[in-house]
Amino acid sequence: MSEDFKIGLLGHGTVGAAFETLLEQRADAVTAATGRRPEIVGVLTRSQGDFDDILARSDLIVELIGGIDPARDYVQRAMAAGKHVVTANKQLLSQHGDELWAAAREYGVQLRFEASVAGVVPVIRVLSESLAGAHVDRIHGIVNGTTNYILSEMAARGISYAEALADAQRLGYAEADPSEDVNGKDAAAKMAILARLAFGAQVTLDDVLYEGIEELTADDLAYAHELGLSLKLIGTAERTGEGISVRVHPVFLYGSHPLASVNGPFNAVTIESADITEVTLSGPGAGGSQTASAVLGDVVSAIIPPPSLPDVVERVPIAQDVVSAFYLHLEVADRPGVLAQIAERLGLQGASVKSVVQRGLGEHARLVMVVHPILESRFYAAVDLISHLDFMRSRPRAIRVIEEEF
Amino acid sequence: MSEDFKIGLLGHGTVGAAFETLLEQRADAVTAATGRRPEIVGVLTRSQGDFDDILARSDLIVELIGGIDPARDYVQRAMAAGKHVVTANKQLLSQHGDELWAAAREYGVQLRFEASVAGVVPVIRVLSESLAGAHVDRIHGIVNGTTNYILSEMAARGISYAEALADAQRLGYAEADPSEDVNGKDAAAKMAILARLAFGAQVTLDDVLYEGIEELTADDLAYAHELGLSLKLIGTAERTGEGISVRVHPVFLYGSHPLASVNGPFNAVTIESADITEVTLSGPGAGGSQTASAVLGDVVSAIIPPPSLPDVVERVPIAQDVVSAFYLHLEVADRPGVLAQIAERLGLQGASVKSVVQRGLGEHARLVMVVHPILESRFYAAVDLISHLDFMRSRPRAIRVIEEEF
Repeated sequence: MSEDFKIGLLGHGTVGAAFETLLEQRADAVTAATGRRPEIVGVLTRSQGDFDDILARSDLIVELIGGIDPARDYVQRAMAAGKHVVTANKQLLSQHGDELWAAAREYGVQLRFEASVAGVVPVIRVLSESLAGAHVDRIHGIVNGTTNYILSEMAARGISYAEALADAQRLGYAEADPSEDVNGKDAAAKMAILARLAFGAQVTLDDVLYEGIEELTADDLAYAHELGLSLKLIGTAERTGEGISVRVHPVFLYGSHPLASVNGPFNAVTIESADITEVTLSGPGAGGSQTASAVLGDVVSAIIPPPSLPDVVERVPIAQDVVSAFYLHLEVADRPGVLAQIAERLGLQGASVKSVVQRGLGEHARLVMVVHPILESRFYAAVDLISHLDFMRSRPRAIRVIEEEF
Repeated sequence: MSEDFKIGLLGHGTVGAAFETLLEQRADAVTAATGRRPEIVGVLTRSQGDFDDILARSDLIVELIGGIDPARDYVQRAMAAGKHVVTANKQLLSQHGDELWAAAREYGVQLRFEASVAGVVPVIRVLSESLAGAHVDRIHGIVNGTTNYILSEMAARGISYAEALADAQRLGYAEADPSEDVNGKDAAAKMAILARLAFGAQVTLDDVLYEGIEELTADDLAYAHELGLSLKLIGTAERTGEGISVRVHPVFLYGSHPLASVNGPFNAVTIESADITEVTLSGPGAGGSQTASAVLGDVVSAIIPPPSLPDVVERVPIAQDVVSAFYLHLEVADRPGVLAQIAERLGLQGASVKSVVQRGLGEHARLVMVVHPILESRFYAAVDLISHLDFMRSRPRAIRVIEEEF
């Protein structure tokens, strides 16, 4: 019997509710990985629950209230009571982080905050653990999904800032009051946290210069396209001679920069260091289940320092035959009926052609086709049939295709 | 006085030598972060050192010999002696991982292996810690830098496989005997390790089907380009109904796939899960200092389970003025001498124009220019001067530019 690991949940909005659902779904797997079964023992909202009561019954507090008050007080009291804390609160950490980190050290508890920056993109863990031994020179980040969505739409559709913002609000990528997203303040808070981690320097939100995207025009994005550039709201934290600089502003990126192709509501962070060249992390920057997943990763780490490796929990068959789309390249004699015979052999195995291009090459012709997803064994059976047709002029060439899903 | 943390180093090739150098450079920072000073107490090579002697004096063994024998025996004996192990050995883990992970649990030591897959790209830590609570559905990876370099060159320059391989060998991206890179076996070993972690299933190298890139032609890459696709050597580990599938083969990716734009010797891994959508990690997959950096991250984690946050170790000034390149967009009256007057104001502040495009718009003209990197305060001083010129028809618009460095 594994002992329960008791979690007090503060806040039950989008992320809080998603966390509760995710924890329920993943409780067995977490138990297998850690030896303890996680359980929510109390939920505090504006209208229900008592903080002291929940605290007394918890091993760990998940703080998803947001804002400074009363979150700051709750987090301090939880740590003073010897409880670990997992939080997604960027405002709190960017303004009062050093006070909280000092308390965590004083009381010997863990304060984890992956979800405070870039949702499920694991930049906090990578900076504070994987790169704990590295000398970071610079971080560039797309750390606000609302503005990245708006800029992506302006670029792709040539629409104005106001139109793109309205679309973002309609689709839930922007709040009714989007001020702190579009003016750069939200990104500035996150960059303050990243700079604190990367440089071990005291940086708070007040130290970060920021500009937003409100004054960008469709023209700016059209010029960017013409010049082969991407226009993004970029947070930068870097060493500059004697000190550091932390700032957020619209930036043109050359096309091959790792952040240039990050579109829609995604977030991404590039960490540069002479030792490592650069590492880029990208993924959804917001969303209930995504942020909840980042919170759960922190909870699992707080339950038990990462073991060498969990036991094997699933014994599963390893498949040798899977479904894939294919590109098929054939060199054939250029005569009537060739395509029909090939199509027949494909059809015999259930392979369906998505697109085909035929080109004459003198006496030969080249057929290049893309075949819809099919069990690989059946596709190769069809290719085998085709390879024996008398008009084939070379061995068929087949390469798998990963198709766009979105 | 902090107590030394003693490291025994097995192997002193490219990565071993880079690790020794990096550890020396970063010893102060690691001491500040962990409270213990890391020190190499012995180095074992073919011609020097005694394993038992080094083991007796070490708290942790860094295994960088590679291959199965004698690495397997050394790692086993180190763990049996209660020492932590950090290794970059993909062969060993993909063939005998479960035996080693079981030993780590039995002896209560850490076995860390970030550097065994994708160099400094932190996919091991993210899978085993950040996503410990997630249900991973699929992993796609570019986990062999040699083949990605070769395919990138074939695509960019239209050259043959043989030519690109020869270039890769000349530049040090491919070994004299590149067989295990180009035939997919190296990538297969790495995918076995990732599948083991992601699915908690027993997977070894023998379970992985693999194909290489030796038979790909310049034609295939030309077709990919024509169809808007990228051709990559992709490792896939995924759940398939009842079981899992792990395989490596050339694949066409649609242009917006996160791996499609990963070029040159870089590695990248995309992890898909319904909860998180997808997370992508990319960076250099090989190289001495990069791999050494991954090893050092593991060593730091082994010294001390990650604390909440290290103390502030540097108190540094936070700069408000930094150097940047700029895009400048001006609407001016279309009359002679305008460009000269603007150029003069820029020159007064030391701003140098990299490129300029002028377009007539009836009575107005639009000037769009890119200015070489300059201290921001000086650039804005020039813009202020320009904004007062009598031919200006609207407020100047300035946006920062991140330029290509490579």
